[in-house]
Amino acid sequence: MFRESPREPTQDGVMRAAGKIAALLPPTPLLPIDIGGTRIHAKCDNLQPIGAFKIRGAWHRLTDLTPKERAAGVVAVSSGNHAQGVAWAARELGIAAAIVMPANAPRVKLDATRALGAEIILYDRAGGEDRDAIANALCDERGRTLVHAYADPWVIEGQGTMGIEIAAQLGREPSHIIVCCGGGGLAAGLALACPSAAIHPVEPEGWDDVARSLATGEIQRVGPNPPRTICDSIQTPSTAPINFRVLRERASPGVTVSDAEVRAAQRFAFAKLQVVVEPGGAAALAAALAGKVPLDEWTVVTITGGNTDADAFARSLLTDE
Amino acid sequence: MFRESPREPTQDGVMRAAGKIAALLPPTPLLPIDIGGTRIHAKCDNLQPIGAFKIRGAWHRLTDLTPKERAAGVVAVSSGNHAQGVAWAARELGIAAAIVMPANAPRVKLDATRALGAEIILYDRAGGEDRDAIANALCDERGRTLVHAYADPWVIEGQGTMGIEIAAQLGREPSHIIVCCGGGGLAAGLALACPSAAIHPVEPEGWDDVARSLATGEIQRVGPNPPRTICDSIQTPSTAPINFRVLRERASPGVTVSDAEVRAAQRFAFAKLQVVVEPGGAAALAAALAGKVPLDEWTVVTITGGNTDADAFARSLLTDE
Repeated sequence: MFRESPREPTQDGVMRAAGKIAALLPPTPLLPIDIGGTRIHAKCDNLQPIGAFKIRGAWHRLTDLTPKERAAGVVAVSSGNHAQGVAWAARELGIAAAIVMPANAPRVKLDATRALGAEIILYDRAGGEDRDAIANALCDERGRTLVHAYADPWVIEGQGTMGIEIAAQLGREPSHIIVCCGGGGLAAGLALACPSAAIHPVEPEGWDDVARSLATGEIQRVGPNPPRTICDSIQTPSTAPINFRVLRERASPGVTVSDAEVRAAQRFAFAKLQVVVEPGGAAALAAALAGKVPLDEWTVVTITGGNTDADAFARSLLTDE
Repeated sequence: MFRESPREPTQDGVMRAAGKIAALLPPTPLLPIDIGGTRIHAKCDNLQPIGAFKIRGAWHRLTDLTPKERAAGVVAVSSGNHAQGVAWAARELGIAAAIVMPANAPRVKLDATRALGAEIILYDRAGGEDRDAIANALCDERGRTLVHAYADPWVIEGQGTMGIEIAAQLGREPSHIIVCCGGGGLAAGLALACPSAAIHPVEPEGWDDVARSLATGEIQRVGPNPPRTICDSIQTPSTAPINFRVLRERASPGVTVSDAEVRAAQRFAFAKLQVVVEPGGAAALAAALAGKVPLDEWTVVTITGGNTDADAFARSLLTDE
């Protein structure tokens, strides 16, 4: 399923990526929030130009391509945020990008990726089509480089730059990082960036493959008939060996959140932070609000994306379930 | 109506206030936005701890009170954002605060002000009660200091600190600042902060007293039966002499925006910036999107607040009128 990686991600790689990101993008805000009398911090990467943290890993990967690789172009698979990250970086660098996206991705993500000039190839997520196989075949046909959404050392290092910004903004390493977790690219990157922080991955109920992988010590997949979840951006069947080699050494036990807890977190962010958070980007905050993770004054929750359709967001605002 | 001010606001005062604000609060993001092919900048002061820029002026005013004035407490009049700014600063400094608010202010603003520990005194905005008279009487009875929402040199200087941040973030003074305008406190403060920038006040349709004051050279009031507007935070009957003395020398002609244009701006900020903007905080962006003000690469629109009820925001997201 996952192609072998040419190298492992490293803390030095995160630092090199952080230099590239700092030259490109201002740090996103780290906003204080009070939860049950404890003041923690929310890292608002939903305020990146593409509305999600994925711009970090995409930029680090694409800027490290060789001239020959740049000329051939890239392929990515994504439910929408990595798609926009790769499309954004490709447009800035003049690189051709083809993105494999689920046909049922939020319209706002499909439209935004197309508007950035990328070629979109749709697949049937509900029908179980293997998006990685589609992408690998495209790479073979066209001689292109795969930019995997999480199983890639550059992508992991790039996402980790969020941790370098957090530490600079706090003036020290965070004690706990509560992180929205799909494939584990951000979680692994943050673990490399902040070696003394506890990393708490948060997944949607029924999509807790990382939590079960950490519990068993071996990579697990989601079950054959996983429940519906509103968290489209972290609806990932399994993590990859390159991510798990980092996480099994560093991550705390994973926790899960329900759709209702995610909606409550979206409402909290709306009312207290004045930011728009998509369901998958609110998972970490949801776990914090639900009391499922330890909180102290050096705890950070990641707010990873804010790309959501208006009617879906209105539903979360008005649905108190 | 307005009490005489002890002094005029100055650029030096803005600089002194900017030092105090920089020690208290990180700069709010200045986010790039593309409007019709021109990349301008949005100053997101809706991301302040109280969800609005009003924290700036309140902090500058309350920290400059004498020990005797601090002990006696303060009174403010506000539809909600200045209320929260004064209540926040008063709580931090241990000062008693009473806030005169319209009974029909958004519930989220009434609740937030109360949660900050302030005493709330409601008045009937629709029935035409004079909120300034109520506040002045309270000050006389209790020996308190009035912290006017805009007719105050400290408040004007404090709001102007937004302009100092903008200039630092841009690396130069902006060419044009498009500013949401109620009483004109922010507009006057920005004019002092950025002496070479063109200042464009934006008001709701039918609430264009500042535009008419600039056009006639004398302070005008809104008419006797002004139309309804969704822009509660900039629904102000008239500017004050202390504001107008700055604005008549510096402001460009004022423009107005309709409720439909404001809703379109709220949707734009939701989809492109991933931030929550209240109607009055979206007026400047609305004017920019509607082509009513000049735009170039050094133009800044102020996004002044994000405190809005969930059902009202959902209505703006879903109402394409």
